[in-house]
Formats: sequence, structure tokens, C-alpha cells
Amino acid sequence: MLQLCLIGIGTGNPKHLTQEAVEAIRAQDLILIPHKGAGKDDLAGLRQAICAEVLTGVAHPPKIVEFDLPVRDPATADYRQRVDNWHDAIAEVWQATLAAHLPEGGQAGFLVWGDPSLYDSTMRIAERLKTRMEMQMRVIPGITSIQALTAAHGVPLNHIGAPVQITTGRRLRDTGWPMGCDTLVIMLDGECSFQSIAAPERVMIHWSAYAGMANEINIAGRLSEVQEEILATRARARAEHGWIMDIYLLERLG
Amino acid sequence: MLQLCLIGIGTGNPKHLTQEAVEAIRAQDLILIPHKGAGKDDLAGLRQAICAEVLTGVAHPPKIVEFDLPVRDPATADYRQRVDNWHDAIAEVWQATLAAHLPEGGQAGFLVWGDPSLYDSTMRIAERLKTRMEMQMRVIPGITSIQALTAAHGVPLNHIGAPVQITTGRRLRDTGWPMGCDTLVIMLDGECSFQSIAAPERVMIHWSAYAGMANEINIAGRLSEVQEEILATRARARAEHGWIMDIYLLERLG
Ligand SMILES: C[S@@+](CC[C@H](N)C(=O)[O-])C[C@H]1O[C@@H](n2cnc3c(N)ncnc32)[C@H](O)[C@@H]1O
Ligand SMILES: C[S@@+](CC[C@H](N)C(=O)[O-])C[C@H]1O[C@@H](n2cnc3c(N)ncnc32)[C@H](O)[C@@H]1O
Repeated sequence: MLQLCLIGIGTGNPKHLTQEAVEAIRAQDLILIPHKGAGKDDLAGLRQAICAEVLTGVAHPPKIVEFDLPVRDPATADYRQRVDNWHDAIAEVWQATLAAHLPEGGQAGFLVWGDPSLYDSTMRIAERLKTRMEMQMRVIPGITSIQALTAAHGVPLNHIGAPVQITTGRRLRDTGWPMGCDTLVIMLDGECSFQSIAAPERVMIHWSAYAGMANEINIAGRLSEVQEEILATRARARAEHGWIMDIYLLERLG
Repeated sequence: MLQLCLIGIGTGNPKHLTQEAVEAIRAQDLILIPHKGAGKDDLAGLRQAICAEVLTGVAHPPKIVEFDLPVRDPATADYRQRVDNWHDAIAEVWQATLAAHLPEGGQAGFLVWGDPSLYDSTMRIAERLKTRMEMQMRVIPGITSIQALTAAHGVPLNHIGAPVQITTGRRLRDTGWPMGCDTLVIMLDGECSFQSIAAPERVMIHWSAYAGMANEINIAGRLSEVQEEILATRARARAEHGWIMDIYLLERLG
């Protein structure tokens, strides 16, 4: 019997691992680390470093195997279909890798960035695998980039009793500021979509790149006053590191 | 100089503490634990138990001091004013307790349930203290009850690229399902506000009480089919334990 464990590891600060995550990593027979290809991001390296740290001195450490993540097929026009096919392709690679390294079954772990429930496809791919082979799944929660962002700035996520919407850069651009909600968290934004906001002088932004990591950058202020600085800082950091991950909190002032 | 450290400790599973939280607890001179009065919840006891576990064998453990949390004055009619006054009263108690136990300054820590940024007033009270005395604040992120909920059920928080709104039971009742967002997380709901939803047969619910704790209860299904079971289970659990904390994910089906 195969047991898949999806282990939330936080967003790059090894100290954000929970005790539960540390124990789960140590208890696996196999740990699978996706490899996106050179220049994409340093996450495979970071996952390797976290494993090395957590497994130091462990008597029977799990075997660590990197696998190449298939790429999305740009020929598939429909976005949902493209993602669906991609998830199928990943499930296939998982299955082959598991068959090669864990033919008798056992415990296989995935180190998931942040928390496995938040804008991450690992759980969906595991669900696909369930239709192909007998397995059980366990999820270990992790510190999300939202928590890393608010901790970095020392600010609350919400106003008292008020709602917060977590959404993507694309949606902010395409559908504008959602009604009835003055606080937004924007993730998955490669385009600095805050530029699409109509009245930036009435919006506060708390922006972090590499939140929780050694090279964390934080900028906060009235959007109209700091947006140029964020654009410039982001471009520079991205050029320097070869990749960037950023997230921000927006508050519409009354 | 006073350093306040707001330490997210997760929602009751001691294994959800991060390494950073463990180190921060150990490094404090003083830990302040709010006491709500008998029959409210077991959280003071849980915080004491977490401290005891984390501080076992530590050479110079922090002093642990419980303080009585002031109560909100029901005579103040306006909700915001009532909360404002209450936060002021708490800041005053903090100040007195800090003056008594840490007259020379040093590091004082608060163990915050879940993550300090999410529906919690500790950070706002710390901001008030800043206007009364010289101090610095540091925030340590923690696993939220949202992460505990999704991990317990093994479900993603969001649909692919889609938004999620975090809101309260009161708002769901008062303003209905927010527009443009098919996924909601409902917190701070003492009234099972899912009962106010118009078409429960078109909504999926994932409900957890005491998420992450030994007595965790999980119920999931179509709202129309499980709402009675949730109501009955919740009433029973609440009577048995004397208090309850619950949270749920709602998804509107297409
Ligand atoms: C595919 S999602 C994964 C989110 C992750 N599961 C979590 O819990 O945070 C990637 C997005 O998360 C955000 N993100 C993740 N790690 C981050 C970090 N260290 N700093 C800033 N943003 C981060 C960015 O918005 C990025 O586009
Ligand atoms: C004052 S808020 C604090 C939230 C906390 N800061 C967090 O990060 O989860 C309290 C609300 O959080 C939710 N909650 C906290 N702990 C919980 C638990 N163990 N199980 C279910 N819900 C919980 C409930 O909705 C509760 O009404």
C-alpha cells in the first residue's frame, strides 16, 4: 500500500517548518523533488537543503529522488484543458517514479511550498493518482506566504470582523477590485497587477518578495507613492536572482 | 528597551509549532498568558501545556505569568467603541504586568492562537502599547485554523486560479454570499450561519471543530445533506467540552 504525504514546508525559511513536518520528512521512505529546469527558480535546491538539514544524523533517512516536471503544452489553447493535461502528465511521471523507487509500496513524501492547500496543484495531482493506483493521502499544513507577508510587515491581515479576499494578479486585472471587500491578498502575480488599480492614492500596499527568506524585501505605503519603487525593486531583484516570488496585501482606505 | 514578541503557535496541535516559535518561546524573559475566566475555553491551559513542553530542560526558562483578561463592557452600545475600549483596557493590564515583572525592559512574549495576523487583536493591542511606552514588536507566523481545516479534510482551499474569501459568520448572515467568489472560509461563527444560505443543495461544506486538536471533528458533504448533522454534533461537542471553536469552507457548485 502506498501512502502519499504532502508536507507543507513554509516559504523558504527552514525555521518555519513545523515539528510535524520535520517528523514526517524523517518518516518517509522516499522523497520526490520536482525539478523545473535551470533558471526557473531555486526551489529544488531549497527543498534539497531543507531535507539535508532535517535528515542530518537520522539513522534511516528516506531516499531523495528528483524528477523532471513536465511542461505545459502551449499548443493547447484552452487554459483549463492545458492545466488538466499537465496534471495528468505529472501524475504519470509520479507513477513511474514511484514504481521505480518504491515497487513494494511504502511512504512517499512531497515537500510542498507554503501550505499544500493554497494555490498549489500537488493535492490535485495526488487525487488523480488515486484513480490510477491504491493509495492514501495525508496533508501536513505549512506556513503560507500570506503568513510570511503579514509577519514580515508586522500587520494584521484583516480589519476587525472584516473580510479578506485571496486572489490572483490576473483576476485583479481582469475583473477589478471585488465588491464588498476592502482587503485583498494578491498572489501569482507576474505582472505587478496593482498598476491596474484606479485610485492608487486611496489604497495601502504591503509588498514582500522572497518573504521569509534571507533575501526578503519589504515595501509598504500608499500605492500611489510606492508603486514605482516596487516596480523598480522587483525588476532589479528578479534580474539579480533569475527568479522572483512576491505577494502583497491591499487595503482600500475608507 | 522592551521587545514584544507575538508568537503564532497554531491551533492546538503542539506539533504545529514551528522551530522559529519554539526558539522564540525559549528566548523570552517573560511570557504573558491571558486568562479568560472559568468555562470560557481551555486555551490558557493549552498555552501553559505548550510552554511546559517547549521549556523542558531549558537552562534559563522565561517566567510565565497569567493575567486576567478584562471583559468587554456590554453597557457600551456601539460595537467598534466597545472593542476599542476593551483593547485599551487590555493594553493597560499588559503595561501594569510588564512594569511589575520586567521593570528593566527585556523580551516579553505572547503565545497567539493560530497566526497573529488572522482575526486576532494581540497585534492591535501591541500597537496601542507603542503609544504608551518605547518598545519593538516582532511577529512569528503560525499555522492558522484555515490550514488546520484544509489539512484535516485533505482538500485544496481554492479552485485553480480562483479567489477565496475569508469572512465571519456574522457577515455571511448579514450581507449574504459575497459576489464573484464561489469559495468562502467562515470563522468566528457562534451561530452556525450556514443555515442562512439560500440554496444549500448547491453548496459543499467542509466543517471542522477543534481542528488540529486531539478531539478534532470533521464533517463534509453537500450542505443540504449534512447541516443537521453539523448542528447536532456541534451542540453535543460544545456541551461536552464547555466550549467550541469551529471553522468551515463553503464552495458554491457551478
Ligand atoms: C503556486 S503559489 C504557492 C503558494 C504556497 N502554497 C503558499 O502557501 O504560499 C506561488 C505564489 O505564492 C506566493 N509566494 C510563495 N512563496 C513566496 C515567498 N517566499 N515570498 C513571496 N511570495 C511567495 C507568490 O505570490 C507566488 O506567485
Ligand atoms: C479569534 S479567531 C483566531 C484565529 C487564529 N488567529 C487563527 O490563525 O486561526 C478564532 C476563530 O478561529 C477559528 N479557530 C481557531 N482555532 C480553531 C480550531 N482549532 N478549530 C476550528 N476553528 C478554529 C474559529 O473560527 C474561531 O472562531
